[in-house]
Amino acid sequence: MSAEFASYRQLRQRTREISFLTSSSAALTWDVETYMPPKALAFRAEQLAYLGSAAHRKFTAKKVGALLTECEQQGFAAESDEAANVREWRRHYDRATKVPPRLVEKMERIRTHAREAWKAAREQSQFRLFKPHLQKVVDLTRQMADCWGYQESPYDALVEGYETGVTASQLRPLFATLRPALGAVLGVARERSAGLAEDFLHGHYPVAAQQAFNRKVAEAIGFDFAAGRVDTTTHPFCQTLGPGDCRLTTRYDERNFVQSLYGVLHETGHGMYEQGLVPEQYGTPLGSAVSLGIHESQSRLWENQVGRSPAFWEHWHPVACEHFPELKRFSPAQISAGVNRVAPSFVRVEADQVTYDLHILLRFEIEVQLIEGRLKVADVPAFWNEEFEKMFGLKVTRDADGCLQDIHWSIGLLGYFPTYTLGNLNAAQLMRRAGQENNSLEAELARGEYDNLRQWLRGKIHRAGSRHRPQELMQLATLEPTQSTYHLEYLRKKFAGA
Amino acid sequence: MSAEFASYRQLRQRTREISFLTSSSAALTWDVETYMPPKALAFRAEQLAYLGSAAHRKFTAKKVGALLTECEQQGFAAESDEAANVREWRRHYDRATKVPPRLVEKMERIRTHAREAWKAAREQSQFRLFKPHLQKVVDLTRQMADCWGYQESPYDALVEGYETGVTASQLRPLFATLRPALGAVLGVARERSAGLAEDFLHGHYPVAAQQAFNRKVAEAIGFDFAAGRVDTTTHPFCQTLGPGDCRLTTRYDERNFVQSLYGVLHETGHGMYEQGLVPEQYGTPLGSAVSLGIHESQSRLWENQVGRSPAFWEHWHPVACEHFPELKRFSPAQISAGVNRVAPSFVRVEADQVTYDLHILLRFEIEVQLIEGRLKVADVPAFWNEEFEKMFGLKVTRDADGCLQDIHWSIGLLGYFPTYTLGNLNAAQLMRRAGQENNSLEAELARGEYDNLRQWLRGKIHRAGSRHRPQELMQLATLEPTQSTYHLEYLRKKFAGA
Repeated sequence: MSAEFASYRQLRQRTREISFLTSSSAALTWDVETYMPPKALAFRAEQLAYLGSAAHRKFTAKKVGALLTECEQQGFAAESDEAANVREWRRHYDRATKVPPRLVEKMERIRTHAREAWKAAREQSQFRLFKPHLQKVVDLTRQMADCWGYQESPYDALVEGYETGVTASQLRPLFATLRPALGAVLGVARERSAGLAEDFLHGHYPVAAQQAFNRKVAEAIGFDFAAGRVDTTTHPFCQTLGPGDCRLTTRYDERNFVQSLYGVLHETGHGMYEQGLVPEQYGTPLGSAVSLGIHESQSRLWENQVGRSPAFWEHWHPVACEHFPELKRFSPAQISAGVNRVAPSFVRVEADQVTYDLHILLRFEIEVQLIEGRLKVADVPAFWNEEFEKMFGLKVTRDADGCLQDIHWSIGLLGYFPTYTLGNLNAAQLMRRAGQENNSLEAELARGEYDNLRQWLRGKIHRAGSRHRPQELMQLATLEPTQSTYHLEYLRKKFAGA
Repeated sequence: MSAEFASYRQLRQRTREISFLTSSSAALTWDVETYMPPKALAFRAEQLAYLGSAAHRKFTAKKVGALLTECEQQGFAAESDEAANVREWRRHYDRATKVPPRLVEKMERIRTHAREAWKAAREQSQFRLFKPHLQKVVDLTRQMADCWGYQESPYDALVEGYETGVTASQLRPLFATLRPALGAVLGVARERSAGLAEDFLHGHYPVAAQQAFNRKVAEAIGFDFAAGRVDTTTHPFCQTLGPGDCRLTTRYDERNFVQSLYGVLHETGHGMYEQGLVPEQYGTPLGSAVSLGIHESQSRLWENQVGRSPAFWEHWHPVACEHFPELKRFSPAQISAGVNRVAPSFVRVEADQVTYDLHILLRFEIEVQLIEGRLKVADVPAFWNEEFEKMFGLKVTRDADGCLQDIHWSIGLLGYFPTYTLGNLNAAQLMRRAGQENNSLEAELARGEYDNLRQWLRGKIHRAGSRHRPQELMQLATLEPTQSTYHLEYLRKKFAGA
């Protein structure tokens, strides 16, 4: 056996062992959120720290660097599985080893304190409590960006961690197009939303009935319950524990079935991506989702493009009425319109489809300026409130409803927000392409037939894992990189009748 | 800092890390039984094998032996925590390292096959399908016993793994006393059991009502639900995942609430032992249960001594009626008598309190003779059936109801069965001593007050962990080693009115 294969095999074996550890962490984390009794927390935290650092040590060992170099020197055929894995392992290895351990530890400590400070600051709506911590996060993040390296903007080094290959200068024109265009749609959409039926959002929907209905929908669109499940948590998420093991969660409001239904549709979209990865490749880049922006495209596609369409309610109305008899008083069109109300509001996570990306572009602008040193931390609230009023026509009176609303910055997640909008754009672009390749798609969806759409996504997106970089994947799937065009077309048609 | 402390500290650190791994395995195993989707199994099995062998390697490393020797040479004060931990670590280390790895691996393989063969053999009630596998298990177990070493009987080396310090020559007189004495009680008890009310065992008891009632009972006797929980599985168990994290399970039969109630009482007994260990000592012998026979004494004490007493039903009858209205037709005395029916039957796990230990002593006799080479594997069914008829007056017509009923031998658990009976004897002996030290105990239990009993067990048994060996612990708690006297007194009084 040649040396290149031996090196690759050793890497494969080592990453397999790492996957046993990270999968254990995933299971223990899932348990923390779902079933763990409260007194177990202290030990669990120590245990997770141990497993995390054991996996990290195994991956950042000098030996891994040497094995990667051997693989690179020998070379694998450009299109081979091995070449793709080696390329991605190298990228992760460099990112993980370029930052000195003392900086990583410092960041860990600062995050822990910043998160606590953010909680207190949000509760009291006092930005000054968070300010010194945000300053430290920004400073240290900038130092890490310098370690990782970048060509144009230190922000690029941050985005790279979530959406490899995407830069600020690519994102800027997308957001520049979105801002006025979304503003225009919003003007029409908010007027049309006045007077829509919404009584059904304040009824009585027992949890058991919601669970039964949600499960029927999730099964119909293609989530495999033999390889996953849905549990209840305060903050919904999708967590893969291993091949054939994808755990979704949601939360229930007995007055409003809509929250859990769209929560499940969203997480099911994430879950079907995870279930569509090649199980034999689990633990390698080829068996892993490629980016957050692609992941989010899958959740948004099923939640919004499919789930918030009139066709969805035409099909599911009779089934929904079996589970929720009070829905009989409403037509499918009324329900569909009601779950698509548009109204500017302060909070991103409650935003409708039209205003959502406005929330993101505000954060993007602030992040870029912060990390490039063009905006002072002290000026964040004023900047936020001014821009927010321009876009939404609403005056922020409490920072808790403004720049303190999201956890992201407190835990060092700068560069993350744009992936939500990339998800929206990718979803619309993929949906359009799927329709071009299958003329019957609309008719199928109206009949509640989701197999062709899911299979198309599986073939174009899921099974590729991280074989291609995100924008290459979009190019292959839709014949062009991510555009704002299709998302805007979709929103205009749906919300402004254009 | 002296060398002895440095060595001890290193051992402590290493065993802490091992506990992170074993606790991960425990959590993943719990998940397999409770919530894991079926397609996750293949990866989970590999993952568990990896974690198990990683923990094993860490503990059996030569370095551990060297550190232990250093600790032993320097010496710790006889009564110190350190001395107890070092003594037990040494015992475990020697047991784990005396058997050559190739023998361990061989046993693993044989167990896997033997378990599958046993399943098939039991389904078809064909001993011959299991015979060659049982032969291999016995041969290999004997080789392992020889590696471990023993003074009188190879059986002693096996029991040592579950009940350290206990030997066949100690067990033999216990069983010799029990056999005729239990036979005598059985004669009276089975007559008295004729005509007892049992309609309530065939009613309709919704799972949710059973769960609510069981939880009230478990909370009342002292299970801490902030440090544990109860889930549903086919085979009930108690599994500790970490300090402050004890998971019980039970199963429900909607026709019969008794099964889940006594299942929960039993597991709660195990669980309160685990919850009573010193959390700071978790992962060391001092923070671990001392033996199966002591563990089982805790489950049997709460299930039988407390839960199957007339006083229990006097107190809980009104609460039970709130959850199960149909119980109003029965008096507390009727229910108490009904859950204490005595009748010889073929299956150990369904046995009443009088016949239970007869099932065990039959298995004990067979195990000892097998491992000492005095009984041939081929002769097991004939021996079983003959002895069974002598004791129970029932003719075994299917080996599935006879020597094929238990999983234990197929997975190499020889020497395990006697701990069930030790549990019964210990439970009666502890209960008697608790009553001697607290004259109001009976009155307290009749009022549903369980705190003093639980605190007494906590102080005498739980908090000791593995500081003392099991029989020393019984001596300290009850002033004598395990006797058959008190269990027999209890059974005679309860079932034969003596």
